Amino acid sequence: MAASWLPIPLGSHFSLANIPFGIISTVSKPIRRPAVAIGNHVLDLSVFASQGGFAKLVDLPKDKLSVFSESTLNDFASLGRPVHKATRSYLRDVFRQDTSFPELLKNNEALKKEALIPLSEVETHLPLRIGDYTDFFAGRNHAQTVGALFRGPANALQPNYNHLPVAYHGRASSVVVSGTPLHRPWGQVLPNPKATEPVFQPANRLDIELELGMFVCKGNDLGVPIPVDSAEEYIFGYVLMNDWSARDIQQWEYVPLGPFNAKNFGTTISPWVVLADALEPFKTAGLVNEVDLQQYLREKRQDNIVDISLEVSLTTAKGNTTTITQTSSKNLLWSWPQMLAHHSISGCNMRTGDLLGSGTVSGLEAGTQGSLLEQTQGGKVTVQLEGGEERKFIQDGDTITIKGWAGKAEDGLIGFGECSGTILSAVQRG
Amino acid sequence: MAASWLPIPLGSHFSLANIPFGIISTVSKPIRRPAVAIGNHVLDLSVFASQGGFAKLVDLPKDKLSVFSESTLNDFASLGRPVHKATRSYLRDVFRQDTSFPELLKNNEALKKEALIPLSEVETHLPLRIGDYTDFFAGRNHAQTVGALFRGPANALQPNYNHLPVAYHGRASSVVVSGTPLHRPWGQVLPNPKATEPVFQPANRLDIELELGMFVCKGNDLGVPIPVDSAEEYIFGYVLMNDWSARDIQQWEYVPLGPFNAKNFGTTISPWVVLADALEPFKTAGLVNEVDLQQYLREKRQDNIVDISLEVSLTTAKGNTTTITQTSSKNLLWSWPQMLAHHSISGCNMRTGDLLGSGTVSGLEAGTQGSLLEQTQGGKVTVQLEGGEERKFIQDGDTITIKGWAGKAEDGLIGFGECSGTILSAVQRG
Repeated sequence: MAASWLPIPLGSHFSLANIPFGIISTVSKPIRRPAVAIGNHVLDLSVFASQGGFAKLVDLPKDKLSVFSESTLNDFASLGRPVHKATRSYLRDVFRQDTSFPELLKNNEALKKEALIPLSEVETHLPLRIGDYTDFFAGRNHAQTVGALFRGPANALQPNYNHLPVAYHGRASSVVVSGTPLHRPWGQVLPNPKATEPVFQPANRLDIELELGMFVCKGNDLGVPIPVDSAEEYIFGYVLMNDWSARDIQQWEYVPLGPFNAKNFGTTISPWVVLADALEPFKTAGLVNEVDLQQYLREKRQDNIVDISLEVSLTTAKGNTTTITQTSSKNLLWSWPQMLAHHSISGCNMRTGDLLGSGTVSGLEAGTQGSLLEQTQGGKVTVQLEGGEERKFIQDGDTITIKGWAGKAEDGLIGFGECSGTILSAVQRG
Repeated sequence: MAASWLPIPLGSHFSLANIPFGIISTVSKPIRRPAVAIGNHVLDLSVFASQGGFAKLVDLPKDKLSVFSESTLNDFASLGRPVHKATRSYLRDVFRQDTSFPELLKNNEALKKEALIPLSEVETHLPLRIGDYTDFFAGRNHAQTVGALFRGPANALQPNYNHLPVAYHGRASSVVVSGTPLHRPWGQVLPNPKATEPVFQPANRLDIELELGMFVCKGNDLGVPIPVDSAEEYIFGYVLMNDWSARDIQQWEYVPLGPFNAKNFGTTISPWVVLADALEPFKTAGLVNEVDLQQYLREKRQDNIVDISLEVSLTTAKGNTTTITQTSSKNLLWSWPQMLAHHSISGCNMRTGDLLGSGTVSGLEAGTQGSLLEQTQGGKVTVQLEGGEERKFIQDGDTITIKGWAGKAEDGLIGFGECSGTILSAVQRG
C-alpha cells in the first residue's frame, strides 16, 4: 500500500486506494460542495480547486473547474469516465508520501488548514441530483427465497427471471442520504391472510433490503440502446442502499402493477460515491446463469460483478447492536452493464444522475440474507439479537446500518463508510 | 363569452376562457421560454414580462418576474395556486376587448409585434422539468375490460382496486412532448402463448393508452402526507397523455414487479398546461365507488372529477385518418386529490414538476375505449379504419393524435390542443 503524508488509520474505508466523492457542508460554511473522503478527513474540492489545486491535472480543462463549485456531483459525473479516472489518480498522487506535487497541498499549510476538514465535522448530503431511480431484482437468492415463501420452491423464480434483469421504476424524490431518519409509513394492509377488506394503520411488517446502488454518469439518446460491452462508460460509481419495504402494504397493493407505497416512503443511500475505477480491480464472476442469453445481454467479459463484502447491523432503541447479515455482492445474477443494456434496450434513455439499485443481495444460508423477510421465513421465526432482544421486523427506534468494502486492510480498503437510517414511530394522525 | 381584441376563431381550444401555459422557441429566437396560447397565437411571456406587461399584476411580486425567463414552468408553478389564478385572470383581462389595461398590449403595436407570435411559428417543448412520473390506473372501465381479458369477468378487478388508487412509478426521462416521433421498441417477447422461452424482436403488439396527466406545483415534506381536502393546492394543471405500451413485452416482463421496458421507451404529453383554475367550472362526479373508503381518501367534495371530452384518432402512413375513440374523463374512479392523498399517505414527498397520469380512460362500449387492447379484445378482432384499412395494434408510420376539451365552442373552449406522436420503424440492429 502506498503511504500518505496524511495519517490514514489502518482499516479506514477511505484509504489512498479509494478516493470516493461526495457532497459536504460544514457549520461554518453551510453551502453544499464536492469533497473526497480520505482517512479521517475530507478534502473540500471547492476550496482546493479555487486555490489552484488542480493546476497540474492536464486532463481537466480549466473551464471545467466549476464542477467543483456545484452542490451536486452531476456536472463532475457528466465529464465522463476518463476524467473521473484522471482526477482520482491525480488526487491519490497529491496525497501520496512521495507526491509529485508537494507544493500543492503536502507543504501548503494554509491550504491544508482550509481544505482538509475532519470527517467528524462535515455533514454529508445526497451526492447527485437523481433523475430517475430504477430498482432491479438481480439478487437471485433473494428472488428464490422470497418466491418460495409466496409460491413454494418449485415456482419460486418467475419464468422470466433468468432471461432478463427484472426491475421496476422506483421513487427518486424520497431517496435520502445516510443518517436521515424515516417515519414508519401508514398504509392499507390486510388485517389477516384471509381478510378481503383492508385496514389503515402503520405498517407492521417493516423490512430492510440490502442493496448496492449505481449512479449513471452518461446519458444515451432516446431510442438508442446502450450496448452491453460499452456500458461501463455509463457507470459513475457505487453506493450502499437500504430499500426500506413495508411488506404488509406491499402484499395488498402490488397486484397488478408492482410495489408503490410499500417502498416510496424512503430509500437510504450512503453519501460517498466509490468510483467505478476504484473497484475495477475487484471484478469477479457472479452467480452462474444457465440460460442461453439473448445477444444484447451477452458480455464479452465474464467476471463483471463488483466483489464487495457487505454487512448489516441492527441497533435497537436500547442500544444493543447485532450484526444480522454478512454477505457479498457476488450473490448477483446480473452485472451492471447487463442492467444498463436491458434498461435501455427498449430505447429508454439514461441521464447523468440516474440511480440504479441492484435488488436485495442475499446468500442462501442463515445470517447471509439481506432482508428480514428472508431471515424470519416470512415472519415465522425470530432473529435473535444481542441483549436478549429479538426481531421479526423493524421496530420503532431501530437503526439499520449497512457497511461495505472491497479489498484488504493491509492493501488499503475501498470502503463505502456507512449507510444508516433510524425508523421513527409513525406520525400521529387525527 | 367575453370578446377579445385579438381575433380568436370560434372553436379554438385556446379561447379567452383557457389561457394555458407552455414553453416555446422560435427559429429566430431558439431559447426556450414561457408563453400562453390564445387563439391562433401565443404570447411570449419573457418578452411581455421584460417590457412591463405584468406591471399592473399586484399579486406577482416584481422579484418573481424572472419565472418568465426560465426554460421550464417549474418556477412559475412553484409560486402556488393563488399566483397562477391571479396571473391567468390578469392575462384574460389583458386580452379582453374591454381590457382594463389597453396601454399594455392592445394599443401597444410594438409589443404586439414582438410578443404575439403565430402559433404556427412556434416550437413547443416539455412544459416542466419532470421530477418523478407516476402512472395511476384510475380508469375503472379499462381495468375491468383488460382484467376480464386476462382473468375472466368474475376476477377482472383485483381485490384492492376499489379500495385504493392503484399506481406504479413510471419513467420520467422518456416523457416527450407532442410531435416527437418514437421508434418501435425492441424487447423480449414470448413467440406464442404456450412458449416458455422468449425471442428478441421489435414489439408486435404496440398499443396506446389515452390518459390525462397532471403536473404538481407544490411539494410536501417527506413523512407528511397531503390531506385529501387540501390536495387541490398541489395541482398546477393538466395535459393529455399517451402512455405507449408494448403489450407483448409487458406480458413477459411484468411479473412480479410491474411494467418496465413495455412503457419506458416513451410517453407523449401535450405541450400546453391547462391550469387547474381554468377547469374548476367543469368539475363533475366520476364513477361511483361502492366501497366504504378509508378516511384519508374520503373527500368532502363529491363532484371532483374534471369533465373533459376526449378523442383519439389514428392516421395511417397512407394518410387515412379515423377517429377510433370518443370518451370522457368522467370514466375515472378516483379524483386527482385522492391520487395525491394516496401517493403521499406513506410519507412519500411530491415535488414541483412531478407528473401524475390518470391511467387509461375508457368507456365500456365500442368506440369509447382508450386502448387498442380493449378495442380489439386482446388482438382478436380488428378495428376498421377509413380507406379500407384496419388495425389490431399500431403499425409503423401510424400517428396517434389525442384531443381533449371542456366547455362549449359558444362559451369558449378550454382545450388542450393536440397530443400527437408517430411510431417509426424499429431501429436496425446488427
